[in-house]
Amino acid sequence: MARQAQPQTAAELGLMPGGRPTPDRLVTLANWQDPPFNRWAFQHLRELVPTARIDRGTGPVTRLPRETRDLDDLRFAAADGKTTTLAALLTATYTDAFLVLHRKRVVVEKYFNDMTPATPHLLQSVSKSITGTLAGIMIARGELDPAGLVTGYVPELAGTSWDGARLRNVLDMRTGTRFSEDYADLKAEVRQYEQVAGWRPQTDPQTADDLYSYIAGLENKEPHGGPFDYRSILTDLLGWIIETAGQARFADLLSRDLWARIGARHDAEVTVDGHGHPVTDGGISVTLRDLARFGQCYVARGRSSGRRVIPASWIDDSWRGDDETRAAFAGAPQAERFPGGLYRNQWWAPFPSRAVLLGSGIYGQSLYIDLAAEAVIVKFSTWPEALDLTLAEQHVRAFRAVVAALRDAGA
Amino acid sequence: MARQAQPQTAAELGLMPGGRPTPDRLVTLANWQDPPFNRWAFQHLRELVPTARIDRGTGPVTRLPRETRDLDDLRFAAADGKTTTLAALLTATYTDAFLVLHRKRVVVEKYFNDMTPATPHLLQSVSKSITGTLAGIMIARGELDPAGLVTGYVPELAGTSWDGARLRNVLDMRTGTRFSEDYADLKAEVRQYEQVAGWRPQTDPQTADDLYSYIAGLENKEPHGGPFDYRSILTDLLGWIIETAGQARFADLLSRDLWARIGARHDAEVTVDGHGHPVTDGGISVTLRDLARFGQCYVARGRSSGRRVIPASWIDDSWRGDDETRAAFAGAPQAERFPGGLYRNQWWAPFPSRAVLLGSGIYGQSLYIDLAAEAVIVKFSTWPEALDLTLAEQHVRAFRAVVAALRDAGA
Repeated sequence: MARQAQPQTAAELGLMPGGRPTPDRLVTLANWQDPPFNRWAFQHLRELVPTARIDRGTGPVTRLPRETRDLDDLRFAAADGKTTTLAALLTATYTDAFLVLHRKRVVVEKYFNDMTPATPHLLQSVSKSITGTLAGIMIARGELDPAGLVTGYVPELAGTSWDGARLRNVLDMRTGTRFSEDYADLKAEVRQYEQVAGWRPQTDPQTADDLYSYIAGLENKEPHGGPFDYRSILTDLLGWIIETAGQARFADLLSRDLWARIGARHDAEVTVDGHGHPVTDGGISVTLRDLARFGQCYVARGRSSGRRVIPASWIDDSWRGDDETRAAFAGAPQAERFPGGLYRNQWWAPFPSRAVLLGSGIYGQSLYIDLAAEAVIVKFSTWPEALDLTLAEQHVRAFRAVVAALRDAGA
Repeated sequence: MARQAQPQTAAELGLMPGGRPTPDRLVTLANWQDPPFNRWAFQHLRELVPTARIDRGTGPVTRLPRETRDLDDLRFAAADGKTTTLAALLTATYTDAFLVLHRKRVVVEKYFNDMTPATPHLLQSVSKSITGTLAGIMIARGELDPAGLVTGYVPELAGTSWDGARLRNVLDMRTGTRFSEDYADLKAEVRQYEQVAGWRPQTDPQTADDLYSYIAGLENKEPHGGPFDYRSILTDLLGWIIETAGQARFADLLSRDLWARIGARHDAEVTVDGHGHPVTDGGISVTLRDLARFGQCYVARGRSSGRRVIPASWIDDSWRGDDETRAAFAGAPQAERFPGGLYRNQWWAPFPSRAVLLGSGIYGQSLYIDLAAEAVIVKFSTWPEALDLTLAEQHVRAFRAVVAALRDAGA
């Protein structure tokens, strides 16, 4: 593979230089997800959309000792059959930051595109795995029950399409809700949704004043509990369920139960709509190391600094699932990428026989946790396109190659 | 004075409880400055308006040793001639937080209305004094010159009403710009301005796409360099000048030159408009102790942890001014409150013969620095009205009484 030029950084592109930028350098609510504007925006989302602070609390920061290795020349087979290297992969996939944690130690930590250890980066749908984890914590405390009805937690949804849906269906993306996530289709629900959530200027006739009203107005395409079908709006509903069951705001609950308990170094943040409702499906931003700390808590079977944070049973269930969940996944388009895999508890479990959890977000956000190998890999990116299956495949191939290298070198 | 009930806290009012709030509990961009919604909003402005992070940097936090005293029963003459106490004053003026620093030590530190040491609180126009300080730092470095023309720093303003205005006129609120700051007048410029700045929903016909275009379109009512006339928009112009002279964004410059050098404990933040332009006249939020640290840097003649941060000459000039500045102030309505005082460098200098600097913001924000007494007093509030001259007078009376008590007790 020929040496590729690094993609231009936000600073090299002259984006948002201070003063009054020329239009080609101006990042706005209308263009922030598009290339090259996302190079700047994913590190500055709070400047475009209102955000709630997720307090890191006042406890000690979890140390991440360093035992760095140069894996730049690590070779692996790319999707096109040719051999590539980790360094070439990071360049080719518009990487903003990359971290490998192995047995609690930082093996690789790299920043690109002006990012620093103190920069919160948008997680997109890796947010779902964090939101799901908070639900898991509340389930273990008995505040939520996967078998419980959505309308039991949010009584104002009684008489809507949510009648009969269970929390388990929401966690595993198996309600019957009609919601197209086709980013290429400008008429898809996800485009209306972005306007309601405050992620785009309001240009279409307003479908709802706020995210929760929008959720309440959705319709079904099939019965609840059917096949797996990935729809972000279900995670936003999960956020609403968390707020009503927890009797507090999502950002405060997430801080109390998770973010203030994993030794995060920085506050996290989540975008909120015009009524203060959190965009829990994709609106969380965190720093590189803090996402690694979250992943490490999974590797440590839910413990952080000797304290129980995440239920061990939740972790096991998330990658193992059950026969029904696996069957529900088998017919989905994603089963081609992850044959025998499943989607459970807001995580992808891509391999049937390997304890791996994957959080994955558009434009190249990844949190890859190999529980058996005690490895956590975090990658923040700003791909030019929301969904690029070739780049996504390259990510997973690279992560597997990194884990294999760590194991080969292991004691 | 009879014991007054504490005003209800945001939590007692049930504001923004999580889930879908009833309208009387919903804080939005439309109502956030109005009572009682401001009780919640001034501690959560980033959830309503996009904000840029002002990084605290990675240096050590300036310690604030405690030597607390109970000043609750401190008595002083209120504006109505009756005697009141400090505790009663704090209750009567909707206090969110209050801190007294004397000779580097925390004498009083109190939180109300759910506020904590980690909560950033909106400064309103105390922001001006921070923005002005950054200008002072740049002046000392030769990057700005008070005698320089506005159009020299921002060439795109040539041919507009800003022709002939000098930086000194901007710093001291003495340009000839027409801009009514009458908050009670719904047609005043300040109301249009709030829509352009993103502080209110856009309901009027749009006067400009963004804050800087709005500034460029303003007209004059008189020649530049005339009498003092307090207009917030001049501080926003100052922010623009700072960005062009500093060739970077305001939040980054403020972090580099000030916030990362005073040992702040927390990041600060500033609201930005739809083009990322900072609302430097009123949109900064900081924690209670961090504002005290900023004030302490003035008391320490511009030094923090042994390092020069703010030029000493800037500090002296800010409270002393000169004959011309004093004369320009004499005819202003504010001269009734502060006879013989002046406005200089984005600070009020209320007393002609006392080295006191006052930063003051609507709804009761105050930073009171008595340089001679080595005292810093910070008060965050959420008054029911933007401007209440009686409450403002109570504030200053209380601050003077506190400083007098500290001096009487002093070694």
